[in-house]
Amino acid sequence: MTEEFAVVGKRIPRRDAPEKTTGAAKYTVDIKLPGMLIGKVLRSPYPHAKILKIDTSKAEKLRGVEAVITIDDVPKKVFNCAMSNPVIEGAVVAAEVTEEHVEEGGGLTEKAAFVGDVLDQRVLSDKARFMGDAIAAIAAINEGIAEEALGLIDVEYEPLPAVFDPEEAMKPGAPIVHDATKNNIAVDASFSFGEDVGKGFKEADCVVEGTFRTSKQKHCQLEASGAVASFDANGRLTVWSPAQAPHPMLKIISVLFDIPEGMIRWLTPYVGGAFGHYASLWAEPICIALARKTGKPVKLVYTREEEFSVTDSRAPAILRGKMGVKKDSTITALETKAITNAGAYVCHAASTTAASMAWFFALYHCQNREGMAKVVYTNTPCTGAFRGYGNCRSMFELEQLVDMAAENIGMDPVEFQLKNTKRTGEAGWVPGLPIENSGIEECIRRGAERIGWKEKWAQKKEGIRRRGVGMACTIHSTGAYPFLMEHTSSFIKLNSDGSANLLVNPVEIGVGIKETCAQIAAEALGVRVEDIQVVSGDTDSNMFDLGTFSSRSTYVVGMSVLKAAQEVKGKLLKRASEKMGVPAEALETREGQIYVRAAPGKRISIAEVARDTLYNYQLGKSEHISGTCSFQPTQSPIFQASFAEVEIDTETGEVKVLRIIVAHDIGRAINPTTVEGQLQGALIQGLGYALHEDFIIDNKTGKVLTDSFATYKIPSTLDIPEIEVILVEQPVASGPFGAKSVGESGMILVAPSIANAIYNAVGVRMTELPMTPERVLKALKAKSL
Amino acid sequence: MTEEFAVVGKRIPRRDAPEKTTGAAKYTVDIKLPGMLIGKVLRSPYPHAKILKIDTSKAEKLRGVEAVITIDDVPKKVFNCAMSNPVIEGAVVAAEVTEEHVEEGGGLTEKAAFVGDVLDQRVLSDKARFMGDAIAAIAAINEGIAEEALGLIDVEYEPLPAVFDPEEAMKPGAPIVHDATKNNIAVDASFSFGEDVGKGFKEADCVVEGTFRTSKQKHCQLEASGAVASFDANGRLTVWSPAQAPHPMLKIISVLFDIPEGMIRWLTPYVGGAFGHYASLWAEPICIALARKTGKPVKLVYTREEEFSVTDSRAPAILRGKMGVKKDSTITALETKAITNAGAYVCHAASTTAASMAWFFALYHCQNREGMAKVVYTNTPCTGAFRGYGNCRSMFELEQLVDMAAENIGMDPVEFQLKNTKRTGEAGWVPGLPIENSGIEECIRRGAERIGWKEKWAQKKEGIRRRGVGMACTIHSTGAYPFLMEHTSSFIKLNSDGSANLLVNPVEIGVGIKETCAQIAAEALGVRVEDIQVVSGDTDSNMFDLGTFSSRSTYVVGMSVLKAAQEVKGKLLKRASEKMGVPAEALETREGQIYVRAAPGKRISIAEVARDTLYNYQLGKSEHISGTCSFQPTQSPIFQASFAEVEIDTETGEVKVLRIIVAHDIGRAINPTTVEGQLQGALIQGLGYALHEDFIIDNKTGKVLTDSFATYKIPSTLDIPEIEVILVEQPVASGPFGAKSVGESGMILVAPSIANAIYNAVGVRMTELPMTPERVLKALKAKSL
Repeated sequence: MTEEFAVVGKRIPRRDAPEKTTGAAKYTVDIKLPGMLIGKVLRSPYPHAKILKIDTSKAEKLRGVEAVITIDDVPKKVFNCAMSNPVIEGAVVAAEVTEEHVEEGGGLTEKAAFVGDVLDQRVLSDKARFMGDAIAAIAAINEGIAEEALGLIDVEYEPLPAVFDPEEAMKPGAPIVHDATKNNIAVDASFSFGEDVGKGFKEADCVVEGTFRTSKQKHCQLEASGAVASFDANGRLTVWSPAQAPHPMLKIISVLFDIPEGMIRWLTPYVGGAFGHYASLWAEPICIALARKTGKPVKLVYTREEEFSVTDSRAPAILRGKMGVKKDSTITALETKAITNAGAYVCHAASTTAASMAWFFALYHCQNREGMAKVVYTNTPCTGAFRGYGNCRSMFELEQLVDMAAENIGMDPVEFQLKNTKRTGEAGWVPGLPIENSGIEECIRRGAERIGWKEKWAQKKEGIRRRGVGMACTIHSTGAYPFLMEHTSSFIKLNSDGSANLLVNPVEIGVGIKETCAQIAAEALGVRVEDIQVVSGDTDSNMFDLGTFSSRSTYVVGMSVLKAAQEVKGKLLKRASEKMGVPAEALETREGQIYVRAAPGKRISIAEVARDTLYNYQLGKSEHISGTCSFQPTQSPIFQASFAEVEIDTETGEVKVLRIIVAHDIGRAINPTTVEGQLQGALIQGLGYALHEDFIIDNKTGKVLTDSFATYKIPSTLDIPEIEVILVEQPVASGPFGAKSVGESGMILVAPSIANAIYNAVGVRMTELPMTPERVLKALKAKSL
Repeated sequence: MTEEFAVVGKRIPRRDAPEKTTGAAKYTVDIKLPGMLIGKVLRSPYPHAKILKIDTSKAEKLRGVEAVITIDDVPKKVFNCAMSNPVIEGAVVAAEVTEEHVEEGGGLTEKAAFVGDVLDQRVLSDKARFMGDAIAAIAAINEGIAEEALGLIDVEYEPLPAVFDPEEAMKPGAPIVHDATKNNIAVDASFSFGEDVGKGFKEADCVVEGTFRTSKQKHCQLEASGAVASFDANGRLTVWSPAQAPHPMLKIISVLFDIPEGMIRWLTPYVGGAFGHYASLWAEPICIALARKTGKPVKLVYTREEEFSVTDSRAPAILRGKMGVKKDSTITALETKAITNAGAYVCHAASTTAASMAWFFALYHCQNREGMAKVVYTNTPCTGAFRGYGNCRSMFELEQLVDMAAENIGMDPVEFQLKNTKRTGEAGWVPGLPIENSGIEECIRRGAERIGWKEKWAQKKEGIRRRGVGMACTIHSTGAYPFLMEHTSSFIKLNSDGSANLLVNPVEIGVGIKETCAQIAAEALGVRVEDIQVVSGDTDSNMFDLGTFSSRSTYVVGMSVLKAAQEVKGKLLKRASEKMGVPAEALETREGQIYVRAAPGKRISIAEVARDTLYNYQLGKSEHISGTCSFQPTQSPIFQASFAEVEIDTETGEVKVLRIIVAHDIGRAINPTTVEGQLQGALIQGLGYALHEDFIIDNKTGKVLTDSFATYKIPSTLDIPEIEVILVEQPVASGPFGAKSVGESGMILVAPSIANAIYNAVGVRMTELPMTPERVLKALKAKSL
């Protein structure tokens, strides 16, 4: 018992691995219920059209069709498919609260932007706002009949002129996607901090600026959107879905369909990846509407084509950034003007835009900061939550501005970063909440040393293939505070053999959170990790959890688990104390044993105390020991520094990434393997964002051209460079055993560090994503002109 | 708000009714898992035989057979299939702890008898102890192949002489069923209370005595024994079964198969009746052994023939009872000598015998009491728990002794009962625990008045068809205290709309306990019953419950639910208090509202407070309100008086029951419809016990001849007399809203009240069950001789 921890910090294998690798794991698509129907959705062939008439009679007559639903069969209420706090006071309803908001400044309110709760959707629509918008749906006894029935629905459309580009959409006379808006602006918000940004720029010795364009990246989670819905004989609804936030979504469905919460059960089967995609509702509402209409269980699973064409993506943005610095690198002013292309519905676009502002202004000391953002509707598929949640775009903008500024004042970017990034105790982005601990200095120093920064950065670049290095830093969140109502509740019950069931409901979207929770509970209780059984995926028995997103789970869920386990341990030690005749405070637990701290040889097994506690004949002495914790966190932001080394083929524009090093301020790695895995996975997804992935919409027809894995290119194993992960462990008091977070952050810095490395290699500034060979070549040619 | 209760005492329909009546309800037999195998059991064709050799090779070679298991493939540990407290210190192992117990007095210890924990079974045996004993088992891809494979197992038996009658079995030289016993006596115990029974008989003015023989009644629950078992890729076991005590049984399986508790999940689908049958393990251990061997899910469901031939029944007994009374009806001595025919394994036979002693001596004032009991092995199917748990046989004996004694001293039995039955505050059968409340006087008076006792009892009996009335009284338990470690834990979580999920795990064996728990929680919280969702049937998420048996659930589980709900209410009122600016103590809840007790107009909805509590942005203010309670009860026994009116055809011996009136001391009827339903159902089952049902074993071959519903006769609708239920409501402080219990008790008094009515009608004393026309006619003939 010399090591600090018995379980925490250990590379423990995940218990979901055997089922996932053997195919035993069951996903939503695998759910089969007796008498279950298959749902299909009729989608608009026009990017913008009024539905004048729908004739469903032919479809209804087809043998095997059990229901055809249209807007008349779905709730009259508007909603937002994004997971968000479902009971926000004063949420703005786009379709209903019209004139006053237009008068307030051409869009919806800033408050709504922050809470992401612009309600602009119906379950089925009477107006198509993008090609693929859901108009009607079928439930039939099999997929073939459902498909056939789709073709029998006669819809009379009145096609309308469409707009796909947000700048075009804001022009007077542009087609209007939602009647409630003026110039298609859903949200128009400004964010101002400190003094006067104009004054700041005047004080600067140099001002750098640029316009950055980020892309519409697709999540490409392997599991396509789907749901199964079933009402029982009492009208109680059970939903199976891969949703990342079952509890808030249950509440949204409760409000939308007018079903009491207790009459809904939300089950989470295995989930095949999420990356933010399942932080919104996709198949669920239509599936529920079909189940309600038919009175039978219905399964609705999207095809891969639907998945690509009608669900969300990262919101593309046009970002006009500007930074003023003094010669000593003091940042005097920081400004960004953002236009977010929300697509046809706001979904998460307002929230990600607001978040992007927070990240943009959070990392550096700067007195004068101002941001402006417009969230604009276009006739394209809506945009949602995506790993990084606004930070990827902000860092692509900000970290290139920093690189430019450093060059301008003749300073090594590493020095610039060491000087300007925020440290422990300084103000973070949450008003009144100083940064608990900043590991950024160690991240920068260790990363720079590891890549051999000094030498490589200063090296002269010559030849056809030129190498360069680039770096970037960021700050990111540990949960959604203060944007959302942050909360997780846990419950632990002790078994009579000293093992324990941990009831907590983070969605295991592949990140290993269940095993991490088990490690935390095991360490806190003093048992082996295999003694903790995580019972989750069922809102009937699990207490509230906000969901698995926003890099929140280890930090928030983990802390809730820790505190619940501590309550259990307290009760256990009290019982042990009675048995051992030693005060509870003198006792400690480890590896299944309760021992006297001052005399470790004096011990008793947890199993013995647990058995004697549950099975005790003495009246009032039998107790099923349990613990609960409702935990609300604040923030203890993580920091990260990323370094990329690239080789540019100046003849083809090809960017070969040789090496990526990421130094991550984790606080404490509960399971280093899991943390590294998260960073590695995110880096690869970030690589796709930086170099490969783009979502192409035909700007005449509005059709998504990249609607399969054949046309939408994600990195393959051959594209993956050498990746090195450095874990900086500076434990924080607010996290479980000192842990902060990791889920999203590996994604954020790949694009800016590669962009800066390209600049270092060949001297061209890549401002548009993805940085394809064509674009690099074009930039090289422009430079040589 | 004038009525005392808003929900309790209301006739609320049950939410399981729609699913049960539409066929949507899924039972264990309906479980289907991918790749699931079907299990079948090879059973001994001899009632007593050694297995010399088993050759499974031919069966194993049959295509589609995945495993053949024998004693070599099952745990070496012995166990007892009876639900009992699974971790009793010093449990007696019949097969192992041999000589010393024999020396201690020819059997196992009294302690073991009380706890019912004689361990004498293996999952599969190498010695057949009754015809149908499990020797081997098959798992195959379908039932047909499994059946075929059974025929391919070659077993070499050495048939042994068998014994079926317990008195024969105790004779020297009788075949020995378990080698560890002397004269087949598994348990030999004596129970002595008060002073000297011999002295008591001397003081008596008259002594009555009789030998009573009770029958081997079969439960006849509609769902035949079955289980599904499945190990996942991590070796975690899930069991689906209709077991009445999932938590203790999980523990038994954990110990037997050496699987940690946290690695077992026990699920309870709908259950098709139980009546005590599922207070033992039947298909589960073999099914688990097959699943373990094959690594695949296995379903094992007994045929109806197996159900009748190899599972348990009520233990038949020979009871020699004796009562001494003074002329004023004072009971001076009470004695019983019991021989229980356990069958081939003790199962519950020791416990039911011990319980029968408790009931025999509990009802009446009497200083001198002595009981002796022998539990004897025979080569017949084992005997188990059955509604009434020893009280049916004791009252058949005791209440006829009372009738005889009353006649002997020339006293109306009603007067005798009013004088001798115990009242509030007197010593019950639990040492040191006085009777909390006895409603027996009201039961007797109201029942006697309702049937018109005085007139009918004294009426002269004439003609071929003669009518008579009889009565009987009893006391019964509210749970298993102090026989078992009584305990239920509940957990309630409040939803943000003011509804609540109640997690508690009584098995819904058809008695309506889930709805009763919902009523208790709803009343306690102040919400509508439909706002309470009972989440049960899963040991992963449900806390400990001892099981659904021993008339314990309303009294024990209900109180646990009440206390957990009170904790939730307390937290809710605290939050309401902050919102309303009124002390929490001044607030009350009802029908979804929180109001100021002194000013009921000042109110706020529970939903509003619940929402504001769960979704609160203020740090430290968001809380998922929950409550838990680990509850251990004592006893608050129920009392009952039953009155029967019969018509005897003196030419055929046919007993026609015209009317049964039962007056039941319920404390408080949470749902009067449910309470009445329990009493009505039990009365009909009691009628079968009294008149019809008998389990016939061929005394040459040991074969069960009554192995179907065609040969084993339960009452049909035509047999059911007019039934009248009187609920005596004298609320007790120890029960939820004053409730005591009802589940078993309606069963107990049917046979003795009919026997006494027969005596009243025709003057013959029926001492053997069932009281068939043949036996009545025989008695009439004997009397007329």
